[in-house]
Amino acid sequence: MSAHELKVRVYYEDTDAGGVVYHARYVAFAERGRSELLRAAGFDHGRLQRETGTAFAVVSMKIDYRAPARLDDLLTVKTRLTRVGGASMEMQQDICHGETLAVEMTVTLVCVDASFKAARLPAEIRKIFEAQPEGDK
Amino acid sequence: MSAHELKVRVYYEDTDAGGVVYHARYVAFAERGRSELLRAAGFDHGRLQRETGTAFAVVSMKIDYRAPARLDDLLTVKTRLTRVGGASMEMQQDICHGETLAVEMTVTLVCVDASFKAARLPAEIRKIFEAQPEGDK
Amino acid sequence: MSAHELKVRVYYEDTDAGGVVYHARYVAFAERGRSELLRAAGFDHGRLQRETGTAFAVVSMKIDYRAPARLDDLLTVKTRLTRVGGASMEMQQDICHGETLAVEMTVTLVCVDASFKAARLPAEIRKIFEAQPEGDK
Amino acid sequence: MSAHELKVRVYYEDTDAGGVVYHARYVAFAERGRSELLRAAGFDHGRLQRETGTAFAVVSMKIDYRAPARLDDLLTVKTRLTRVGGASMEMQQDICHGETLAVEMTVTLVCVDASFKAARLPAEIRKIFEAQPEGDK
Repeated sequence: MSAHELKVRVYYEDTDAGGVVYHARYVAFAERGRSELLRAAGFDHGRLQRETGTAFAVVSMKIDYRAPARLDDLLTVKTRLTRVGGASMEMQQDICHGETLAVEMTVTLVCVDASFKAARLPAEIRKIFEAQPEGDK
Repeated sequence: MSAHELKVRVYYEDTDAGGVVYHARYVAFAERGRSELLRAAGFDHGRLQRETGTAFAVVSMKIDYRAPARLDDLLTVKTRLTRVGGASMEMQQDICHGETLAVEMTVTLVCVDASFKAARLPAEIRKIFEAQPEGDK
Repeated sequence: MSAHELKVRVYYEDTDAGGVVYHARYVAFAERGRSELLRAAGFDHGRLQRETGTAFAVVSMKIDYRAPARLDDLLTVKTRLTRVGGASMEMQQDICHGETLAVEMTVTLVCVDASFKAARLPAEIRKIFEAQPEGDK
Repeated sequence: MSAHELKVRVYYEDTDAGGVVYHARYVAFAERGRSELLRAAGFDHGRLQRETGTAFAVVSMKIDYRAPARLDDLLTVKTRLTRVGGASMEMQQDICHGETLAVEMTVTLVCVDASFKAARLPAEIRKIFEAQPEGDK
């Protein structure tokens, strides 16, 4: 539950006139990956917001671009939860094309309430992520 | 107030691997043009929603692509209100690059309340648009 | 081969402050559907461009928005080839959420060469699409 | 020439169902700012590519999200060239809403040739940026 892989196909909408994937698109691909990790753990964003009144906001990202991806490529977004705090989580995300690492990212998220103030991570979320032993947690 | 021109610069984010503007981007450019026509008339979307509880939803679009636009082009989005009904409006939008017509669109919008049901156009909006005589209204 | 269904998940990137899918995003979803129909027929855009020097450009679209879709919805993009001409094709596309029709589109595409001039549809493409009898072709 | 400010209006396309600007959109806003800094220095991307055969690719970004921006906000993208190397440049970018800092980014770019290999920065670009004394260059 603390690691997840998502396949993402590159369409025209994701590319730019340089002939490669536009750099901001990987940021959206990564958000898809985090959403699916959460969904695989039994939560979708809508249910989370309705049932707990909270959502996740990105507070910081560190992104390294290693190799360009192109139209029609089938990418894999590998998402790994690396740290869980009281109100925040850190995820490590690799976006690969076959064996090639295209982009790697470290993303820090904070749990926020309806007015975008930091809120404690819902207990049921903590429980799921704490179930697995994880070296770097 | 029933006609408006907006300049839109083409950036990498708007282009695709074909070397031209991605066709869905013109739909967003057109929405910018309609927002600015509304703003020039004294309304922004946020104020409209807060003060009248309503928003505009696109119900149909007819789009013709005439000529491709490219990176760095400075486009003009020409928006003209062509019809105002009880709950709906129709706009004609031309997106040009210099003298060249790139895209032309006809967009029908309907005024909706918070639950996306059709609602009567706010009186103050009708008043503004009805102030000018317009041949095809 | 002349009909195809693609599942598309709605992520935050696809929604807007109105709480629903941003209207231009359906245009991109539809393009994904057309790409996958083509891929299912043995062609990806990259190979098409390399081997035949041609690509497909949208020349017109007619879009009707029927019902809003929302975050986390799993949509189905149903693409059907409805007409094949010398240099052009017409596709009918329905985007559904369960039984609900969200958006329906008619899209006309033209085959273009590297300088965006209309070109004859590659024979191998015509063959695939002409293989099936189709009522409304 | 080594500092530039660009106004960016927030439209529906930039927002998400959380009611704020989608986090990946700031990455695109920042790219607009860098493009305009380059244009103000006499270069647009198209001309750069045609005349020198080179383009700029992002190799890394560090992004901190400080405060959410919303629909209709008029943002200022402040771009400052902070380092010029043989093939690379570093830019510091602040995206503000009035006095409020919304997002701050450090972006490292590398000059690449047509096959995405690192290439020396064109002399005319270096000259422009080296004209001004800059503390941290």
